[in-house]
Amino acid sequence: MPQLLSEHACFGGVQRFYQHDAQAIGLPMKFSVYLPPGHEGKQLPVLLYLAGLTCTEETFMTKAGAQRVAAELGIILVAPDTSPRGAGVPGETDSWDFGAGAGFYVDATREPWSRHYRMYSYILELRQLVMREFGADPARCGIFGHSMGGHGALMLALRNPELFRSVSAFAPIAAPTRCPWGEKAFGGYLGEDRDAWKAYDATGLVASGPVRFPQEAACRAAGQPLELRRHAGYDHGYYFISTFVEDHLRFHGRQLG
Amino acid sequence: MPQLLSEHACFGGVQRFYQHDAQAIGLPMKFSVYLPPGHEGKQLPVLLYLAGLTCTEETFMTKAGAQRVAAELGIILVAPDTSPRGAGVPGETDSWDFGAGAGFYVDATREPWSRHYRMYSYILELRQLVMREFGADPARCGIFGHSMGGHGALMLALRNPELFRSVSAFAPIAAPTRCPWGEKAFGGYLGEDRDAWKAYDATGLVASGPVRFPQEAACRAAGQPLELRRHAGYDHGYYFISTFVEDHLRFHGRQLG
Repeated sequence: MPQLLSEHACFGGVQRFYQHDAQAIGLPMKFSVYLPPGHEGKQLPVLLYLAGLTCTEETFMTKAGAQRVAAELGIILVAPDTSPRGAGVPGETDSWDFGAGAGFYVDATREPWSRHYRMYSYILELRQLVMREFGADPARCGIFGHSMGGHGALMLALRNPELFRSVSAFAPIAAPTRCPWGEKAFGGYLGEDRDAWKAYDATGLVASGPVRFPQEAACRAAGQPLELRRHAGYDHGYYFISTFVEDHLRFHGRQLG
Repeated sequence: MPQLLSEHACFGGVQRFYQHDAQAIGLPMKFSVYLPPGHEGKQLPVLLYLAGLTCTEETFMTKAGAQRVAAELGIILVAPDTSPRGAGVPGETDSWDFGAGAGFYVDATREPWSRHYRMYSYILELRQLVMREFGADPARCGIFGHSMGGHGALMLALRNPELFRSVSAFAPIAAPTRCPWGEKAFGGYLGEDRDAWKAYDATGLVASGPVRFPQEAACRAAGQPLELRRHAGYDHGYYFISTFVEDHLRFHGRQLG
């Protein structure tokens, strides 16, 4: 049973923060849930949001302004933390892009990270918990995220199409095996054997081959529907996300029915 | 000339953060401005937002979700900090409700606060700066705020009806001379002579007499138009503000024409 930490009325629904004993992590984890108005006794669609480096379960709920549209569409929003906290791995808080706040949604296989840094399994565990605790509809679950969390969303959806009916991402790390952030994280969590990285690379999961915009070409080659948008002048932060979050929610709303 | 610290595209406009040498304060002050799309070369209406205890010039812009509606309505948003910073007054950061982050929008008359803690004059200075630097329309300036900032907005508008054409507040400290927060702050900044407090008490500025809901009764007695809304279940934070900020912006949009 997750423990309720706080709740706040918001757009006619309720914004809640929980802590629970996460089996996949072996430590307590926090997450946030937005329940839209009239959620009681209904099987509503649910949308998981995976945040980026340095974020917590609170970031999206305070900065994105998503609850307004979720309330209108009747969608439950769920945001996990971005890594285990207090795992006690030496140096885990030394880097902003590796360790605490930077779990990269993989199950680490390298010591000493492999004991607790198992965010891939944790997201699937949290999905199950949300179905059980909040009566969400397992057939209508989507996932999205930003940056590191965009990587997580794309990768989790591609590997589990039966669990996630819709996916979108803001400025995702779409090809983590081909950029310094991903190389640092995957090397650290998974070791130097790059074959082991493939299961966590969204672009690789769709297709292979080095191209300028790998996600676009890979999707075209594989027949994977993709709507790729570029917005001139916007940066990588939540002023960008808040501007376009409504578009993402309405996309998921259509997909989740 | 204010110094641009950062800028971020947001809802087709731009979110900016500035620092400038504030004459009224005698120290550098930071403030934030949201410029809606198409602001160049236009005299747009402007809305000042005064934040509550512990907040900064960033709080409203990151948490309230107001830029979406300001972009639609073509209103410039401006948010100052809530006190001088680094004034060097002994103990100024010891309390969350007095000193740094808690300027209460008064001009302090008591030593040692009176040198820098002059937020009343500063808000009027910032209003002038905004007209000059961003070409805002001086005839179409509104003000609103939250909690301590709601007190500030009501009080400033009542004392300067020629400068502020519209005013609204979220859960304001509407009668600060009659509650512990206001008594602590006004005693500290203005001294023990309660006559000196009257110029900063919104309810007192409308009328006088102890009543249960002083703001409502005072406004009725004085013929001051008031729309007073109560929202069951909401708390004092930004999940509350984000829920109702659109209503406030549309109210100001109508008043400012």
